[in-house]
Amino acid sequence: MGGYTGKILRVNLTEKSIKTEPLNPELDRKYLGGRGLAGKMFTDEVAAEVDAFSPENKVFIAAGTLTGTKAPSSGRFMVVTKSPLNGTLTTSNSGGYWGPQLKFAGYDMIVVEGKALAPVYLSIHDDQVEIKDAAHLWGKDVYETTSILKAEFGNDTAKVLTIGPAGENLSLMASVMNDLYRAAGRTGVGAVLGSKHLKAIIVRGTNKLEPANPGAVKAVLTDILNKIQENPVTGQGLPAYGTAILVNVMNENGVYPVNNFQQSYNPHADETSGETMSEKYLVKRESCYRCPIACGRYCNWDEGEGGGPEYATIGVFGSNCGVQDYDAIHQANDWCNKLGLDTISVGATIAAGMELYQRGYIKPDELEGTPLEFGHAQGMLEWIRKIAYQEGLGAKMALGSYRFAESYGAVELSMSVKKQELPAYDPRGVQGQGLAYATSNRGGCHVRGYVISPEILGVGEKIDRFSTEGKAKWVKHTQDLTAVIDSLGLCFFSSFALGLSDYRQLVNAITGFKYTDEELLACGERIWNNERLHNLRVGYSKADDTLPKRLLNEPIPDGPSKGNVHHLDELLPEYYTVRGWDPEGVPTSEQLSALGM
Amino acid sequence: MGGYTGKILRVNLTEKSIKTEPLNPELDRKYLGGRGLAGKMFTDEVAAEVDAFSPENKVFIAAGTLTGTKAPSSGRFMVVTKSPLNGTLTTSNSGGYWGPQLKFAGYDMIVVEGKALAPVYLSIHDDQVEIKDAAHLWGKDVYETTSILKAEFGNDTAKVLTIGPAGENLSLMASVMNDLYRAAGRTGVGAVLGSKHLKAIIVRGTNKLEPANPGAVKAVLTDILNKIQENPVTGQGLPAYGTAILVNVMNENGVYPVNNFQQSYNPHADETSGETMSEKYLVKRESCYRCPIACGRYCNWDEGEGGGPEYATIGVFGSNCGVQDYDAIHQANDWCNKLGLDTISVGATIAAGMELYQRGYIKPDELEGTPLEFGHAQGMLEWIRKIAYQEGLGAKMALGSYRFAESYGAVELSMSVKKQELPAYDPRGVQGQGLAYATSNRGGCHVRGYVISPEILGVGEKIDRFSTEGKAKWVKHTQDLTAVIDSLGLCFFSSFALGLSDYRQLVNAITGFKYTDEELLACGERIWNNERLHNLRVGYSKADDTLPKRLLNEPIPDGPSKGNVHHLDELLPEYYTVRGWDPEGVPTSEQLSALGM
Repeated sequence: MGGYTGKILRVNLTEKSIKTEPLNPELDRKYLGGRGLAGKMFTDEVAAEVDAFSPENKVFIAAGTLTGTKAPSSGRFMVVTKSPLNGTLTTSNSGGYWGPQLKFAGYDMIVVEGKALAPVYLSIHDDQVEIKDAAHLWGKDVYETTSILKAEFGNDTAKVLTIGPAGENLSLMASVMNDLYRAAGRTGVGAVLGSKHLKAIIVRGTNKLEPANPGAVKAVLTDILNKIQENPVTGQGLPAYGTAILVNVMNENGVYPVNNFQQSYNPHADETSGETMSEKYLVKRESCYRCPIACGRYCNWDEGEGGGPEYATIGVFGSNCGVQDYDAIHQANDWCNKLGLDTISVGATIAAGMELYQRGYIKPDELEGTPLEFGHAQGMLEWIRKIAYQEGLGAKMALGSYRFAESYGAVELSMSVKKQELPAYDPRGVQGQGLAYATSNRGGCHVRGYVISPEILGVGEKIDRFSTEGKAKWVKHTQDLTAVIDSLGLCFFSSFALGLSDYRQLVNAITGFKYTDEELLACGERIWNNERLHNLRVGYSKADDTLPKRLLNEPIPDGPSKGNVHHLDELLPEYYTVRGWDPEGVPTSEQLSALGM
Repeated sequence: MGGYTGKILRVNLTEKSIKTEPLNPELDRKYLGGRGLAGKMFTDEVAAEVDAFSPENKVFIAAGTLTGTKAPSSGRFMVVTKSPLNGTLTTSNSGGYWGPQLKFAGYDMIVVEGKALAPVYLSIHDDQVEIKDAAHLWGKDVYETTSILKAEFGNDTAKVLTIGPAGENLSLMASVMNDLYRAAGRTGVGAVLGSKHLKAIIVRGTNKLEPANPGAVKAVLTDILNKIQENPVTGQGLPAYGTAILVNVMNENGVYPVNNFQQSYNPHADETSGETMSEKYLVKRESCYRCPIACGRYCNWDEGEGGGPEYATIGVFGSNCGVQDYDAIHQANDWCNKLGLDTISVGATIAAGMELYQRGYIKPDELEGTPLEFGHAQGMLEWIRKIAYQEGLGAKMALGSYRFAESYGAVELSMSVKKQELPAYDPRGVQGQGLAYATSNRGGCHVRGYVISPEILGVGEKIDRFSTEGKAKWVKHTQDLTAVIDSLGLCFFSSFALGLSDYRQLVNAITGFKYTDEELLACGERIWNNERLHNLRVGYSKADDTLPKRLLNEPIPDGPSKGNVHHLDELLPEYYTVRGWDPEGVPTSEQLSALGM
């Protein structure tokens, strides 16, 4: 079979052992690679009740089926483990170049088990794999660690994945970073590596991945690349302005959160838009491995230079913290990257803190001199540092907005689902996206089902964003298709231009499998149900498939989505039905058996 | 005036002195920045007869008027000096990020004078400028030097310009490299730095360049970026396939040299085309500073990873050396970058060597075991190394194909103009381009007037490539406009989509000047004439405005341009007339006075 290496690297940090084992082809056929296969291995190998920080928890760092192949945007890998933020079976994925390099080194996946007594890092150069002492790296930030490891490795083409101080300090918002600016950002996966004392993984590979059917690959690629080029989102919007192009688009639709979702329209949004970034900050566009879209930005701002902020990052640190200072937003993004923090959760947690302060829950003397008012850019920046190093109130914030607000008896001010913060799309103006938030298997998240595509961008099809009709089906399809795309190791941005059949042709040409559209989508549904089953085992229920009260009860006060709330009560039962689950949201045995689970 | 820093840094290596001085605004207004201003300063300050390697020669490393501003593709800077290859007043320009950084540090230009006794490098951090010992860098390649300097500087955002071993060893084909893979490649400028013992310049700047008229800049940029996006060459061809897209295009027009211009059509060209590169080697696209085109390639091949080859590089190392091995072409490109060699001259010199061997001028025992047959990829790679380190016959090759062929009494086998090798366009099938070659002020070169644009690509207008009619006017216009674009610090690829008026609006909006189209183009003509006057002073005459005999006398033997020779004798007199020069190619005093020279 093409595309795969067929090999898994299993590293036990307690025993200091390194083994390779073959990929299970039967499991792989049913769950694809990456998110799907790693998730299934997780549920097979790790008991649901194992604590996220215990040595018994495992981390599966998995490339996708097509990662590192000629498929476009095939740079992604996934970090799959039990989340310390919310206990879900989480899969955080990231782009750049690290994932392909793992495949070139000869591995589809690394399974990290146990816990090292003192800090270590993993060095992989094809079949030369070593667990090495990382005492000199502990405490170093992401940029420093990357430089030091590359210099020690002696080859600049080696790729570095690492945690920052936030992960070492077990912040529940810690990310796993790679290639300096790329993040497996959400659900605190960086802290799991921190708990295992695994600082970094440097990898270099020199093998090539041969497709099963080169002629078919060529034909499919020609077709797919044309579609990507001709699509207005992937051919023009994202290349020209990055994801920040969404700032003005979302604001014009009145779903752009202001001051912790107290409003959803910002008359000054253009000051921090993608257009403004291109005009004032952009140095160059950056692309991930073999990506024709190149939505990444490299910017300089008043005090630095580096990766530029994504849409959601601008939204949470900007408008949602009441901040209009674009230099400060760039700096906030850079600090999160450097310290190894998830921008969305950190921005949203600071915003929640600002509202806790605004409403008098947090008293001035708790702040120890660091401002926490909406709009205070310098205060916001200082809180990022305090979160990473857990200083003062920063130690409480480092646990995320849910636990932070809960500690003040004001959990309703945490704009989160299953303890994870929502990104910068107000679901009151996009009913389908709200249902996707509420039912996301890893909590508040837009990339487990990006229904913004049809509801606002109108790619493929444009549907009424305020309507609830038919949305359950849209959400299910988007969630399942995304599980497929993730597991293939592709960027879901490709789906603005491509559909299920495109992915099916691509995976068949490269692997030599003969999936039908239905079989491929069934893999996605299987993945989704496997994640759901884990969540039910750890105690999640229908009651957790919900949204913050504000979004269900308080109509948006102004702007183009004025007057709307989210109608989850209408949507959720239909969603369970469409999923073939019972009225409590539990997959039925018929459904599972139909999926071959 | 916006865009400029208004300051020049003057460094004398003999005296170890560092001074700043103001830019001469009057000169600048007449000669623009970069190539124009530096060339004028060169002719004002350096006597024509000064030897290129003498301490009295000076190197002007100059950013352009718009370098580092919001103008698209404004990443370029120029290395202006007397060429050791051919004595011309040469200006080699390069993209990437180094040029903008020089402006951010507060300088429009560095003038390097004198000669250090032992190797040094220059370190610039805003107004902190130091001449530092480079004993530890001498002998190091471009990649090593870049890493070491960045680590010593302690800030990865600093940009490095450096020579490789070829420049240290005074190869007449040595380039000045920056940002790892970008080259001021031609006419041996790297050897001039080598002769001065100046290994490298690292620079970091933290200032911003403010435009004179931000509102006007915004409007012009919107318009210009649309034109670039909508143009098929800058909006599709170059972004998707890089300059290598030209391989198939030129071959299909029968102007793609094979075996040192013995043929000009290669039935297997597609094996080493841009399309094949994208399919098999491309890792990501790379862009220079603020470039919406992003034609740069980052590739991996059998034995390495790094910057990918440009069209001309593929042409000279591939077809023109009879080599079809694409991995070897990638490797050849990488070795040239790493060792600091100009790919075009090196590839063409090896091709000339292959023909000298084929025709029995070079005897087998001179080769010391390294093959020099057309098509021998491994031999070709080994010769690159021998040229850089001047081993065996490599020492003779390091002087370029003209001197190399001349030493065998077979100068007609050097495919060069004014001792500089021609790139991969056979002028027999593009009459205008041939005239541009013959009259180029720095010798055989396609980027001093790229008449391929109208003759083959048909951007703007499509003209008959076999005809001589009207070509003199085209060549003059293209040469003058390119002098403008170079001096502005923009990439001439922007001219596929933009015309004189676009540049005029841009420069006026950013600088606050009020050029008319005619005045701006007159700057270009002034620059051209200034370069010409230098060349006449060093002894060049009408007899040197010529092409290799083969191209004038031997019809192309096969392919789509079969039967054609170049008709220089028809074109040259008309060109002199159009230029306002006398029949010997000397600018008349009337013409010079009309230009205010």
